[in-house]
Amino acid sequence: MPYNIVLVEPEIHTNTGNIGRLSLASGSNLHLVKPFGFEITDARLKRAGLDYWQHLDVHIYESIEEFYTKNADKKMVYLTSKSQKSYTEIPFEDELFLVFGKESVGLSNEITEANSEVLYTIPMFSEHIRSLNLANAVSIVVYEGIRQLNS
Amino acid sequence: MPYNIVLVEPEIHTNTGNIGRLSLASGSNLHLVKPFGFEITDARLKRAGLDYWQHLDVHIYESIEEFYTKNADKKMVYLTSKSQKSYTEIPFEDELFLVFGKESVGLSNEITEANSEVLYTIPMFSEHIRSLNLANAVSIVVYEGIRQLNS
Repeated sequence: MPYNIVLVEPEIHTNTGNIGRLSLASGSNLHLVKPFGFEITDARLKRAGLDYWQHLDVHIYESIEEFYTKNADKKMVYLTSKSQKSYTEIPFEDELFLVFGKESVGLSNEITEANSEVLYTIPMFSEHIRSLNLANAVSIVVYEGIRQLNS
Repeated sequence: MPYNIVLVEPEIHTNTGNIGRLSLASGSNLHLVKPFGFEITDARLKRAGLDYWQHLDVHIYESIEEFYTKNADKKMVYLTSKSQKSYTEIPFEDELFLVFGKESVGLSNEITEANSEVLYTIPMFSEHIRSLNLANAVSIVVYEGIRQLNS
């Protein structure tokens, strides 16, 4: 399992579903930190056609505190539009945790201020866009990590 | 404008919306080939909060024949799970057309057979997944192209 994808307080269930698919396709683990903007239930997953979900290595945490307590010794980087450093500069390594914030506002100031040395962003080329779709952003970063580890 | 993103017969409007956002963020043009599995209307775009859509350079074609007629002199590559060649080997160049098929079945056999030398795929690492979400796949390929042109 090369990477750990972390979604802090995801709001939109289709994004989390797509990121689950991406996690499995890329051989990553998925970590979901509550509160969510939706409910994860077996019935809903089945309705959404997410029959692959059962194969996914997914960890659910009740809070960001629980997440940090359980992963205290892990190396993490954070994706945020508040950074100027490109995601291509992430020091990718096996088991790295890639932490993404919620769709509406990204990571909290508390998190970005406490981790200011390891913030990265995806460059954008239009003043009309503030951020990419969350699942698209995760895809770009994870596959760059796979490319780097394989090259 | 570095790249041209082409969606042949897209079926799911949220994917096309996300790819529009990605197109604008990445400085790409967007080409949409009918028939679509949805209607693009101003009211729907507005409802979906796609207020950036007006800034996008989007070309709509009534058929694949019209698309090829209008872009006869353009260099194109095709993304499909039928290929063994990684998208990282795409010979990216300014204005390249990146052609993606529909969500359910990808590109038609007619298209892949006629372009067998320029088919590329995104590697996946799970037997439980047949393909990535379309918008995620487009994101991975376009940002790899941006990375290569900038490095």
